[in-house]
Amino acid sequence: MAATHPTAPRGVLAAALTPLAADSAPAAARFVDHCRWLLDNGCDGLGVLGTTGEAMSFSVAERRGLLDALVEAGVPPRRLIVGTGAAALPDAVELSAHAAALGCAGCLIVPPFYLKPVSEDGLFAAYAGIIDGAGDDRLRVFLYHFPQMSGIPIPRAVIARLADAFGNIVAGLKDSSGDLDHMTGLARDFPALAVYSGTERYLLPILEAGGAGCISAGANVTAPVIAALYGEWKRSGAGEGARCLQQRVAQLRGVLDGVAMIPAMKALIARRRDDPGWAAVRPPLVPLGDADRAAFLAGADAAGLVLP
Amino acid sequence: MAATHPTAPRGVLAAALTPLAADSAPAAARFVDHCRWLLDNGCDGLGVLGTTGEAMSFSVAERRGLLDALVEAGVPPRRLIVGTGAAALPDAVELSAHAAALGCAGCLIVPPFYLKPVSEDGLFAAYAGIIDGAGDDRLRVFLYHFPQMSGIPIPRAVIARLADAFGNIVAGLKDSSGDLDHMTGLARDFPALAVYSGTERYLLPILEAGGAGCISAGANVTAPVIAALYGEWKRSGAGEGARCLQQRVAQLRGVLDGVAMIPAMKALIARRRDDPGWAAVRPPLVPLGDADRAAFLAGADAAGLVLP
Repeated sequence: MAATHPTAPRGVLAAALTPLAADSAPAAARFVDHCRWLLDNGCDGLGVLGTTGEAMSFSVAERRGLLDALVEAGVPPRRLIVGTGAAALPDAVELSAHAAALGCAGCLIVPPFYLKPVSEDGLFAAYAGIIDGAGDDRLRVFLYHFPQMSGIPIPRAVIARLADAFGNIVAGLKDSSGDLDHMTGLARDFPALAVYSGTERYLLPILEAGGAGCISAGANVTAPVIAALYGEWKRSGAGEGARCLQQRVAQLRGVLDGVAMIPAMKALIARRRDDPGWAAVRPPLVPLGDADRAAFLAGADAAGLVLP
Repeated sequence: MAATHPTAPRGVLAAALTPLAADSAPAAARFVDHCRWLLDNGCDGLGVLGTTGEAMSFSVAERRGLLDALVEAGVPPRRLIVGTGAAALPDAVELSAHAAALGCAGCLIVPPFYLKPVSEDGLFAAYAGIIDGAGDDRLRVFLYHFPQMSGIPIPRAVIARLADAFGNIVAGLKDSSGDLDHMTGLARDFPALAVYSGTERYLLPILEAGGAGCISAGANVTAPVIAALYGEWKRSGAGEGARCLQQRVAQLRGVLDGVAMIPAMKALIARRRDDPGWAAVRPPLVPLGDADRAAFLAGADAAGLVLP
């Protein structure tokens, strides 16, 4: 029921990395530690098991198991937006129903991403199939617009049809297109939806446009600084202080430009935790080579990217 | 062992459609019938559970179940190349091991298709992870180069590294790029690999370049004509007769241009079999609308596209 369902967290959400074990299996204990650390260091919530979390490289059983581990360890599900999209409709149904049953704040659902192109009717049918298939009033769907990765943009007409058809089950969207005008336009034109920027570079503009915040990869390593920006905006709005902090956020985010972001952030955390195993990634990703790793870590140090 | 493993079929392979039941579940009995009908009407083999078979829209359990149904019904596994690619490495490992254990001629494996871009090292690691994970000498891998759909091209350097590293486990590739020079170049430069064209439009050129044949969607509805071309080429080479038949094959293939190919072919078979349920597709696909369907069927009739 809407009245008792946890509202999705606003502000700063990290698109959490998923650490692995030596055999490339997901490392649940490391994952729980990382998620707690993010929530203790500036994150209002977490986007778990999404693109940055390498979720599409995991089986359905692995994805379920990681979410179970978080919730069993006491991480509050009301602070979690869970990636539950999949190429196959039954997989997306199963993962979305599972997250809803656990009381998670929402499911961030990328369109089915193999067959291309997809018609507007087909995209509507895919989301409707997930919502109907999950069959749970507690489900909250966040549409994931990330055409560069999924190959499937989500047109405004489909957003409007889904919101009309499914009421408050369709709760928001994340825009990772990198197109600032597109995402602020969505926040203005769909005020009933919680619109998140996919990058902390645009946190201030999306907040000013009425958006909900950001769900960002960079927050895995810069959450305290992004949180300072969000706090300043809540206190004083978009004044000089917030603008300065937004610049600092963008500067730190720039450290990740031009490198393979997931392996790079994992290497940074491996060094900070003195846990080389943290650097592991699953194919098709590969760890940074030694020279790239050294250059990246030196650049992070030079920029003052210091993990708590 | 190489000596006893079935060699992949050469010539005309249909990328078989997967019919559905009323509840959108895969319809195993209809699938068995369709595959038998294709093998009885000109196909030397079948590419099952690939793009045209909507396989990425099915769960791993559904994909396994459909292959089990075929083999249990007596369709010879030596005539099957099975799509076993997946976004998630463990899914691709499970599906590839399953197909190899059933004695299938090969696995057609698309690169993991969510994360982009993928480095050459990462692509090699993904295929190596599948081969090592399946751990079966009977496995035969056909690399699937289809950048428009997967978003991940397979560079020549990766083909060469995989062939060097895994010997005759890497048995061939299918090129659905639509780039004739690319596919004939691969056939010439990798003579140890069985190279298939993804379209029957290029069957004659790929055969002349030393390729193995085609694995094509269109063959679901035009296999007898493509088989006539292949038979003529085997008898008399690329003379006037073969060129005329190649033109006829291309003309029939043109009937499918500009329509959603999977729903259109399913509609054609539904009419031929007087079985409206055959037209069902799974989201994100949708059936043709009534007007599009009528226009497509009229065009097929006008072109003389007659199913056996």
